[in-house]
Amino acid sequence: PDSIRLAVVAGDGIGTEVVEQGLRVLDAALAGTDVKVQPTEFDLGARRWHATGETLSDADLASIREHDAILLGAIGDPSVPSGVLERGLLLKLRFSLDHYVNLRPSKLYQGVRSPLADPGEIDFVVVREGTEGPYTGNGGALRVGTPHEVATEVSVNTAFGIERVVRNAFERAQARPRKHLTLVHKHNVLVHAGHLWRRTVEAVNADFPDVTTDYLHVDAATIFLTTKPSRFDVIVTDNLFGDIITDQAAAIIGGIGLAASANINPDRDADGSFVAPSMFEPVHGSAPDIAGQGKADPTATVASVALLLDHLGFSEQSRAVEAAVAADLAERGDRVRSTAEVGGDLAARVAG
Amino acid sequence: PDSIRLAVVAGDGIGTEVVEQGLRVLDAALAGTDVKVQPTEFDLGARRWHATGETLSDADLASIREHDAILLGAIGDPSVPSGVLERGLLLKLRFSLDHYVNLRPSKLYQGVRSPLADPGEIDFVVVREGTEGPYTGNGGALRVGTPHEVATEVSVNTAFGIERVVRNAFERAQARPRKHLTLVHKHNVLVHAGHLWRRTVEAVNADFPDVTTDYLHVDAATIFLTTKPSRFDVIVTDNLFGDIITDQAAAIIGGIGLAASANINPDRDADGSFVAPSMFEPVHGSAPDIAGQGKADPTATVASVALLLDHLGFSEQSRAVEAAVAADLAERGDRVRSTAEVGGDLAARVAG
Ligand SMILES: CC(C)[C@H](C(=O)O)[C@@H](O)C(=O)O
Ligand SMILES: CC(C)[C@H](C(=O)O)[C@@H](O)C(=O)O
Repeated sequence: PDSIRLAVVAGDGIGTEVVEQGLRVLDAALAGTDVKVQPTEFDLGARRWHATGETLSDADLASIREHDAILLGAIGDPSVPSGVLERGLLLKLRFSLDHYVNLRPSKLYQGVRSPLADPGEIDFVVVREGTEGPYTGNGGALRVGTPHEVATEVSVNTAFGIERVVRNAFERAQARPRKHLTLVHKHNVLVHAGHLWRRTVEAVNADFPDVTTDYLHVDAATIFLTTKPSRFDVIVTDNLFGDIITDQAAAIIGGIGLAASANINPDRDADGSFVAPSMFEPVHGSAPDIAGQGKADPTATVASVALLLDHLGFSEQSRAVEAAVAADLAERGDRVRSTAEVGGDLAARVAG
Repeated sequence: PDSIRLAVVAGDGIGTEVVEQGLRVLDAALAGTDVKVQPTEFDLGARRWHATGETLSDADLASIREHDAILLGAIGDPSVPSGVLERGLLLKLRFSLDHYVNLRPSKLYQGVRSPLADPGEIDFVVVREGTEGPYTGNGGALRVGTPHEVATEVSVNTAFGIERVVRNAFERAQARPRKHLTLVHKHNVLVHAGHLWRRTVEAVNADFPDVTTDYLHVDAATIFLTTKPSRFDVIVTDNLFGDIITDQAAAIIGGIGLAASANINPDRDADGSFVAPSMFEPVHGSAPDIAGQGKADPTATVASVALLLDHLGFSEQSRAVEAAVAADLAERGDRVRSTAEVGGDLAARVAG
């Protein structure tokens, strides 16, 4: 491609600040190529909702679909009732664009202090299912506000949905030196969904005979993430378990300020182009307490830009961004820099 | 009471070994009183299931009901299909006896090394709901084994069920110096259940005006459990979230070998006696890899005995057991002792 049509959803709070630096590094990474970034900004999030009552209109969604990828900053503000923007915007994007691979790499970079006393080498990636499980919005409530209220949440799991994400996780495991895949679930209690996950991993394993697998209950996984995170290579898991353990994973590698993520739909049309744009976003939220102060660390957004480049086939440029992040972290020490300074330093490393 | 009718479910693997030491310390704690422990052993777990196909018969359950409390070792063996003993025995006990308060204290004792570099003071208790949420066994599967399989898991949440456990958590918070209660849920995604939890905490707070409260999404809770566990005093949460974060909590205080738990039904009949026996169990599992070798650490079981004594009104004896555990941990260093030696040392401290 000679251009990347990029939908930019800066969102709320520090979202705008970190996305600006992400775009700067993206431009720097592509400077040596013929490829230009064509950004389209979408005004989505708390401001838009307060002004219009809209979270994501059909027109927004149709327009976003015309792009090659989405860069998202952060969504959410205390002034908006809980669930409105999460369900109406962020999850609506993930579900509408069928982002079934929610990819979250966890690497403890040199120079970064882990809160663990003896972290060992941490370098794993979580493949979190992104379109099913307890996130489907199934369920409801009865007799709301009375002493007889009943609220249900239904986790929906399909062979189709699990097979495709498990296959993707096996592909990723096969491409890594250790070739190991861990399924995380809770099949001793959630027997229906859990056994479907387990049978699917066993079945797909036949197509990846060189990948070894094991299984951990989600509760046990949180223990190993504390005591021996080096045991993990690729983890595949359900939407909710993935949400939980990737925040813990971010904590042990030095904080969500460093954690990148990608919401990927890897499917392609007959002509080889992706069926839908994938979405790249830092794991952290909008952090209203520090918004507008130029204090936010854009590193997670920049690392998400590396995932974006890789997804679109710019592997060399992706590695350059990743290397810039690693070098910057190795040398930052206790220096305090503004959001723009960190972005500038990263862009300079990528360019240079 | 002049006797404690104790149902003993030693269970599988190391269960037998640790329960033996738990009973020894219980006897030691009551030695100075007129109260005798009358244990009834129940042959439940993997052996029984292999021999008879039974997990927990109606007769077992009726007989267990006639007791004042249950001491449980550990349930589970790799030879039994996942879910059979968990649902058919452990969860059946919790649900049948309406153990709606699943109490899990987390304390970093002096002398114990935390895997966290800078743990600070860790001393909180998780009040995990024990009879609802995704643990109800609702849900099912369709077209099993085909590419069109659909599996659902239904989380059921009632105002009744949440109100009673939230009230219990407020009572516990009010009795502690910091008087702080944190609700952990995921109300930005699980909006029906989450908002019911949130509204309930707000409503019950009116009866406990001196207790302060805050809220964390479960993913954020795993971060704070890594970076600042000292922020927690009492946590109240759903059955599944409680399962997950209490294993993480056990890891940061030095491992599940030290984590005690109580499955409590605090309700009483008109005559003041409990409506059902509560159940006390270490958080760890049956650990088949080290079973029968006298290596298992009985400390979690002994700490669960302290919870048992407290529940039955023997607060002084409970404190003595708790103090023995604390003193033993403070002095154990790197000494390697057998299961029986640790039990013996703890019993001696309690007696003396
Ligand atoms: C904001 C919320 C809906 C979201 C999620 O639960 O997926 C976030 O926690 C994340 O992990 O991206
Ligand atoms: C064994 C299993 C059913 C159980 C649970 O999930 O509650 C265990 O993990 C626990 O925490 O007591």
